[in-house]
Amino acid sequence: MLNEAAILAAREGRKAIEMDDLEESATKVKLGPEKKRLQSEEERRITAYHEAGHALVSSSLPHMDPVHRVSIVSRGLALGFTEVPPTTDRYHQTKTDLLERITALLGGRAAEEIKFKELTIGAANDIEKATLIARKMVAEFGMSRLGPIFLERGEKAWLARQMGEPYGYSEEMAAKIDSEVSRITGECFQRAKEILRDNSKKLDRIADALMEKETLEAEEFEKLIKKPSR
Amino acid sequence: MLNEAAILAAREGRKAIEMDDLEESATKVKLGPEKKRLQSEEERRITAYHEAGHALVSSSLPHMDPVHRVSIVSRGLALGFTEVPPTTDRYHQTKTDLLERITALLGGRAAEEIKFKELTIGAANDIEKATLIARKMVAEFGMSRLGPIFLERGEKAWLARQMGEPYGYSEEMAAKIDSEVSRITGECFQRAKEILRDNSKKLDRIADALMEKETLEAEEFEKLIKKPSR
Amino acid sequence: MLNEAAILAAREGRKAIEMDDLEESATKVKLGPEKKRLQSEEERRITAYHEAGHALVSSSLPHMDPVHRVSIVSRGLALGFTEVPPTTDRYHQTKTDLLERITALLGGRAAEEIKFKELTIGAANDIEKATLIARKMVAEFGMSRLGPIFLERGEKAWLARQMGEPYGYSEEMAAKIDSEVSRITGECFQRAKEILRDNSKKLDRIADALMEKETLEAEEFEKLIKKPSR
Amino acid sequence: MLNEAAILAAREGRKAIEMDDLEESATKVKLGPEKKRLQSEEERRITAYHEAGHALVSSSLPHMDPVHRVSIVSRGLALGFTEVPPTTDRYHQTKTDLLERITALLGGRAAEEIKFKELTIGAANDIEKATLIARKMVAEFGMSRLGPIFLERGEKAWLARQMGEPYGYSEEMAAKIDSEVSRITGECFQRAKEILRDNSKKLDRIADALMEKETLEAEEFEKLIKKPSR
Amino acid sequence: MLNEAAILAAREGRKAIEMDDLEESATKVKLGPEKKRLQSEEERRITAYHEAGHALVSSSLPHMDPVHRVSIVSRGLALGFTEVPPTTDRYHQTKTDLLERITALLGGRAAEEIKFKELTIGAANDIEKATLIARKMVAEFGMSRLGPIFLERGEKAWLARQMGEPYGYSEEMAAKIDSEVSRITGECFQRAKEILRDNSKKLDRIADALMEKETLEAEEFEKLIKKPSR
Amino acid sequence: MLNEAAILAAREGRKAIEMDDLEESATKVKLGPEKKRLQSEEERRITAYHEAGHALVSSSLPHMDPVHRVSIVSRGLALGFTEVPPTTDRYHQTKTDLLERITALLGGRAAEEIKFKELTIGAANDIEKATLIARKMVAEFGMSRLGPIFLERGEKAWLARQMGEPYGYSEEMAAKIDSEVSRITGECFQRAKEILRDNSKKLDRIADALMEKETLEAEEFEKLIKKPSR
Repeated sequence: MLNEAAILAAREGRKAIEMDDLEESATKVKLGPEKKRLQSEEERRITAYHEAGHALVSSSLPHMDPVHRVSIVSRGLALGFTEVPPTTDRYHQTKTDLLERITALLGGRAAEEIKFKELTIGAANDIEKATLIARKMVAEFGMSRLGPIFLERGEKAWLARQMGEPYGYSEEMAAKIDSEVSRITGECFQRAKEILRDNSKKLDRIADALMEKETLEAEEFEKLIKKPSR
Repeated sequence: MLNEAAILAAREGRKAIEMDDLEESATKVKLGPEKKRLQSEEERRITAYHEAGHALVSSSLPHMDPVHRVSIVSRGLALGFTEVPPTTDRYHQTKTDLLERITALLGGRAAEEIKFKELTIGAANDIEKATLIARKMVAEFGMSRLGPIFLERGEKAWLARQMGEPYGYSEEMAAKIDSEVSRITGECFQRAKEILRDNSKKLDRIADALMEKETLEAEEFEKLIKKPSR
Repeated sequence: MLNEAAILAAREGRKAIEMDDLEESATKVKLGPEKKRLQSEEERRITAYHEAGHALVSSSLPHMDPVHRVSIVSRGLALGFTEVPPTTDRYHQTKTDLLERITALLGGRAAEEIKFKELTIGAANDIEKATLIARKMVAEFGMSRLGPIFLERGEKAWLARQMGEPYGYSEEMAAKIDSEVSRITGECFQRAKEILRDNSKKLDRIADALMEKETLEAEEFEKLIKKPSR
Repeated sequence: MLNEAAILAAREGRKAIEMDDLEESATKVKLGPEKKRLQSEEERRITAYHEAGHALVSSSLPHMDPVHRVSIVSRGLALGFTEVPPTTDRYHQTKTDLLERITALLGGRAAEEIKFKELTIGAANDIEKATLIARKMVAEFGMSRLGPIFLERGEKAWLARQMGEPYGYSEEMAAKIDSEVSRITGECFQRAKEILRDNSKKLDRIADALMEKETLEAEEFEKLIKKPSR
Repeated sequence: MLNEAAILAAREGRKAIEMDDLEESATKVKLGPEKKRLQSEEERRITAYHEAGHALVSSSLPHMDPVHRVSIVSRGLALGFTEVPPTTDRYHQTKTDLLERITALLGGRAAEEIKFKELTIGAANDIEKATLIARKMVAEFGMSRLGPIFLERGEKAWLARQMGEPYGYSEEMAAKIDSEVSRITGECFQRAKEILRDNSKKLDRIADALMEKETLEAEEFEKLIKKPSR
Repeated sequence: MLNEAAILAAREGRKAIEMDDLEESATKVKLGPEKKRLQSEEERRITAYHEAGHALVSSSLPHMDPVHRVSIVSRGLALGFTEVPPTTDRYHQTKTDLLERITALLGGRAAEEIKFKELTIGAANDIEKATLIARKMVAEFGMSRLGPIFLERGEKAWLARQMGEPYGYSEEMAAKIDSEVSRITGECFQRAKEILRDNSKKLDRIADALMEKETLEAEEFEKLIKKPSR
């Protein structure tokens, strides 16, 4: 059940503002009962900027596929979503691809910070996904300053140890991994904010359009970002 | 059974002076048998200041909902309670919202310290809830100096590892999380004490009214805090 | 069975000279078989000072309830006991209450050290109870220099993690907790020794009376401690 | 099932661009659904250089057996493969043999970096195998700066402890092992890059031939590498 | 079965030269098959000095009970034994009692070192018992420089945590405990060696008598140690 | 099954060039399929020097029993073996005995390094056994710079904790143990190399004889080592 929710939420481009079902039920108890979803204008505006942030950062990165649709219509647990389906098959995911994906995932949080000087818990799922990609880059794909080394601690390591293989690593190495993961997500977050700061007019334009039309298809979105930034 | 108690106790605004059933039964053995609940005037006065602290801090914070009711009538395990039900639906919990919630939760302990230079174990549940929110801010919501990074160690991490995902983090990162959690709860506690020190007349007034009437409805409470502080 | 013994031994005021059953059976093997309990005069004298220490420290602390009975008659596993039943209901256990309780628990060991320059294993249970209270003050009640923070590592943390809550803490924080626990028990032990040094005549008087009468009721005890110390 | 996949993928000389089945199914959810394998020219070029890197590094090392076949025809999960079957029986695997094996395994990643200044996740399996060999050299074969010491932490250590044997080691030693593993894989990676930089013409030639013919048999491969490098 | 052996071996005053059954069977495999117990003169001499060391140190300590019997007749797994049965009932085990017990336990190893400049594995059980007492002094009885603090990590701590009690301690505290345990066993070992150095004539005399008569009863032993040392 | 193999391999004097069955099957997958055992002359030469190293070091140590047989005939998993059966019963294993045993175990690796400047994985089992003896010397037999202290972490510690005993130790102590184990195996390895360097003629002579006759009985071996070294 927990995984079910995780799988749903993980579909790229969606923004799960509430976390998975389990956590939500726990949250209900702690943070007060959840109400029917009638968003205020202010709430819709935050959602609009969050999604605009994802879409604008994504479309500004050279290796990301084009944005297919952006919306602030809530679906299931998500208050909005940005769809960026792959247009071609990719067999070789590169370091650059992964860094851009992390940057696009943090585009929603970046928009919140730049526009409202505020952070929302709605970005938690984006952060979780971005962190996981960064962690794989460091520990499995050999794409960090730690070099081409495989560092496995989970289930796979456990099974390997059953076979007598000396998987697993030290606390010191674990700290180095965390340090690299922090650096990667931090640098991608900076890049997302820079993109949005350099294109703040476009950000407003997309958010305004979302507030008005609720959903932007690829063509509408393309027209908005092709207009000059000032 | 343990969770049942935890859920009951967790309803915001209540003050569970005795901890959950399980712990209470353990306490009985260690700290002597519990007696029928007939509070002395001194005891009622502590409860009154504790609840007055919650209510006054809560009403002094710009983003908290208005106080609905304050009371020193014991209910179940709680010796008193402060009700702050949400008046509008919130989809975007912000960093500011969460910091104010922590501050309000620590308002009871702050009142004890300022008024009596003494601490009671009655604040333990408030502290637990405040710490948990702070911990989520740091480790899940990316709302601390550690930046937009997801740091999961619990059940979710365990399940993720079954799927081969490299969740989990180092002791060094765990220490950084603890350090940020300490800083957040510490700063919120300072803020709660400042609010009460700046409004000590109002604190006395609310506590006195609670001693007299036992329960204050929203209007009565509003009248008391609208009077000038001196 | 282990808990049964723990519960029995935990009844405040008793002095379980042998530890719980389980441990005793282990001890039998290691430290030689246990004999029928016929104490020598020297042994009775140690017991008398130990109980006199508990009783005198307890009665010297401002917030402790009056001593009801002191005895060196062995009961079950205990060679003696000091009864301090609560005279009024307490809803608000304060930091001061808990510090005095720790101080009284360490009064027996303090008497041994001051009178005989010697330590006995009979104080082990007292130390265990004192440490547990100190640990709760630091980790659960927010009553140490670590401030209002909840630090849970046990069963509750495990259950919470099942719900996805990020309980648990780092080794660095664990070391800070230990350091605070050490400081608290150390300071209370110093205070217990100071009380006994300042009242060494009374200590002798109570111990002598216990050697003679074996059990002192509240009135007899009160008369002894009301006599001037010199 | 996981092991099945691991065993398949582990067959030397193959390049499993997607990781094992389990991980792939997890990846599907996270990185979008997988498409039918129709590689673009660019993708085939990356595969060609990756395999050329393995084959050229392998053939340049004095103790490695000759390359039997190189191919960019995808088989199962692998996009290409390089076959280096042992020509003679070896009873004494030496330190030199193992270092060369690690170097050859990292030859694919080295080619990516040198040719495209880019890293792909396709090298993850190579890195995993290389790391595992390095780890065994350090912890089991006594072939590192730590000297002739056996350091076992896995299943074997667990079984040994059942027999009362004091296997297992400290975090400090674990950090030393990691440090040596890092050093070994790092040095082998440098060596692989040096070989390819010194033979960049040959690398291009092999990659071009693979793009054209898809598979090179031993003789064709030998002819290509015997031509002068410039 | 393991415990059975442990219980047998733990009977004070015995010297289990081979460790418990389980370990012995493991040892057989590793250190070669065990032979029928026919000791050479040299072996008997080592045993004689080992037992003489236990007996002489024990009789030289002010609070130890008198030596009842010393022997180098092997019994079960033990090659010799020294019996020191308690002559009176003791209810108050003191710090002094425990330090003397540790010193007597290390008397056998001390004799080996002083007489032969050599160490035997026969002292392993003595060391284990001595360490365990030292560990209890530090962690349970509050008899070290760490002061009156209870530090529990084992089964009891686990059960306590089920009840929600915050037992358990940090790695930093664990290191302090180890450091104190080391200090205590180290100081007792020095004391044992000093006693034997100061009484080397008596040591030779007892060992010689054991070589000759194999067993010394209390009276014979007393006569030997009452003769002047030179 | 794993233990079966371990027990077989552990029979002193054998050289298990391939590790236990389980590991071998894992190795097959990773390091290529194993072939029928037809050793090349070069392979036989390595085996000969390895066994000659064991035998010569062993016969050069004052407390080791005489070499009974040396051979490079493969038996089961072992490519060769050196038999040193005990000629007399030993009840008192001394520190000196154990250090010589470690030195003899590392004699094979020492010969490889001195003769071929190369290390083979065939020495892994020797290293494992040597490390285990060193670890027992430090943690169980009190034969290191850590002094007479018992440090148990395995199954025995677990059982002891069930009985409430405070076995187990800190990470800091674990690091000290590892450091002592490293020192002991390192010093013994140096000693083995010194013996072989001082007797290099004899080493060649024994290896040559093994190449020629495959097996040397005690008398033949004795004759070879009695010839002057130059």
